Amino acid sequence: MAENALPPNPDFAAKVRESFGRQTFMTALGARLERVEPGVVHVGVPFSAAHTQQNGFLHAGVLASVADSACGYAALSVVPRDCDVLAVEFKINLLRPARARHFVAEAKVLRAGRTLVVSFAEVWGERDTGRELVATMLSTVISRPVPEG
Amino acid sequence: MAENALPPNPDFAAKVRESFGRQTFMTALGARLERVEPGVVHVGVPFSAAHTQQNGFLHAGVLASVADSACGYAALSVVPRDCDVLAVEFKINLLRPARARHFVAEAKVLRAGRTLVVSFAEVWGERDTGRELVATMLSTVISRPVPEG
Amino acid sequence: MAENALPPNPDFAAKVRESFGRQTFMTALGARLERVEPGVVHVGVPFSAAHTQQNGFLHAGVLASVADSACGYAALSVVPRDCDVLAVEFKINLLRPARARHFVAEAKVLRAGRTLVVSFAEVWGERDTGRELVATMLSTVISRPVPEG
Amino acid sequence: MAENALPPNPDFAAKVRESFGRQTFMTALGARLERVEPGVVHVGVPFSAAHTQQNGFLHAGVLASVADSACGYAALSVVPRDCDVLAVEFKINLLRPARARHFVAEAKVLRAGRTLVVSFAEVWGERDTGRELVATMLSTVISRPVPEG
Repeated sequence: MAENALPPNPDFAAKVRESFGRQTFMTALGARLERVEPGVVHVGVPFSAAHTQQNGFLHAGVLASVADSACGYAALSVVPRDCDVLAVEFKINLLRPARARHFVAEAKVLRAGRTLVVSFAEVWGERDTGRELVATMLSTVISRPVPEG
Repeated sequence: MAENALPPNPDFAAKVRESFGRQTFMTALGARLERVEPGVVHVGVPFSAAHTQQNGFLHAGVLASVADSACGYAALSVVPRDCDVLAVEFKINLLRPARARHFVAEAKVLRAGRTLVVSFAEVWGERDTGRELVATMLSTVISRPVPEG
Repeated sequence: MAENALPPNPDFAAKVRESFGRQTFMTALGARLERVEPGVVHVGVPFSAAHTQQNGFLHAGVLASVADSACGYAALSVVPRDCDVLAVEFKINLLRPARARHFVAEAKVLRAGRTLVVSFAEVWGERDTGRELVATMLSTVISRPVPEG
Repeated sequence: MAENALPPNPDFAAKVRESFGRQTFMTALGARLERVEPGVVHVGVPFSAAHTQQNGFLHAGVLASVADSACGYAALSVVPRDCDVLAVEFKINLLRPARARHFVAEAKVLRAGRTLVVSFAEVWGERDTGRELVATMLSTVISRPVPEG
């Protein structure tokens, strides 16, 4: 689905999982990779009473953090093997109070250029009565060759 | 500095501090209110090795979280006494890798309407060699009467 | 597809067409309504040599203008009969140079609340070789009762 | 004021004016360069009854167009002599109805990196009673060497 001007990296999934494992902030949030495909990454995060805003809902910053990571890794899955990505900017709309036990940020790449990769993410809240859309994000990352160790 | 169509709330500082104290996520990040004035709120956050992205810099989500809170409380400081605010959307540009020991998100209200309040924030990284701008945010929040307890 | 907390307006199409007809700027751009459904509005605009940026491509401002109108009218199609909408903010990513003879901004409502309506738009460039995605937008509008004449 | 990692271009003003002159859309809007300094560009545009939204105010797309051009030229003023800039993305908040006879988009560069330049713009409406802030923008552009003719 993602439009990609770049040569594929057959090891994209291992690369995404290895990098995600180094994001200590994702561990601190209890976030996990739930899906890793070329141009598509889902990151789940549980509700935690230690991560709320003033009314006891999950803080918008938590939703933004997992959506940002999901967009970054969707992008990382489509850039060349020797490249890393860095967040340039993102914009998020909070559509509803984040009332749910579990949330999933579902990102997909909209356009992978040689320098910039643009992705879109939806954040869904999973409740007993079904799932509802709680936020949407547009994200831009920059792809850069990793300096050799 | 902030343009405000609203009647002032003389107790704005106590209201901001009380609400900030209920944001458990700010406590989890080690974030603190560093300045509270009408239409201006600064939120500081230390670097933590537990809150990084894959290269060991502070995660963009942490910067976004404290900037979002700073914008929200800048807005809360100018809405009527019986109103709360809820994040509608924000957009952040990451200008440099977040390499510093301490960061401060400095928010100010640009426009306080009856329903919506728009704020701008800068996030500064404080290093031994001085401070540098690491991110900027534009934020919109909605103001609503608090349901009576 | 659009999630809507609001009662439907059976006359939405006439209302959208009447209001679009009053946007003189759409006429100036040569823009036209190409589709009007509940929560979905498409606005087309031709390439014009009088509306370019410095390299002869359609100006990003033209793409933003038609996408903003498409999002606004997608929102207007789902708000109550006696309400108008006003743009609050939007964000656009330009994905490719706007090289095409005709462009279509396709907007759909993501969330219609009582006060705010959030929409997403894609802008497609139509070329002999097919269509390509040239821009994406996230938009927020506010819904307000129209003052009686 | 602008932070700039790049070598200055002594001919920046001529380069900005020459490129602006090729933006036919700016001519169509009646827009003019009102100030050109390193990292700072102002673009003015008059109200026109041919460029309105449904209530007779200047269309948000016009404000976005001149603010986008102002940000792009603020960026162009600080990139190397042989580089052009292309819009990557922008986000605009509309703070008030655009009721004025004349508007000025005032852009300044916040961060000029080797590849990306981030700018901030304010759009002011000039009325008999003074000027008021009607919109704010955050913009990202990409800098690229101009292909030799």
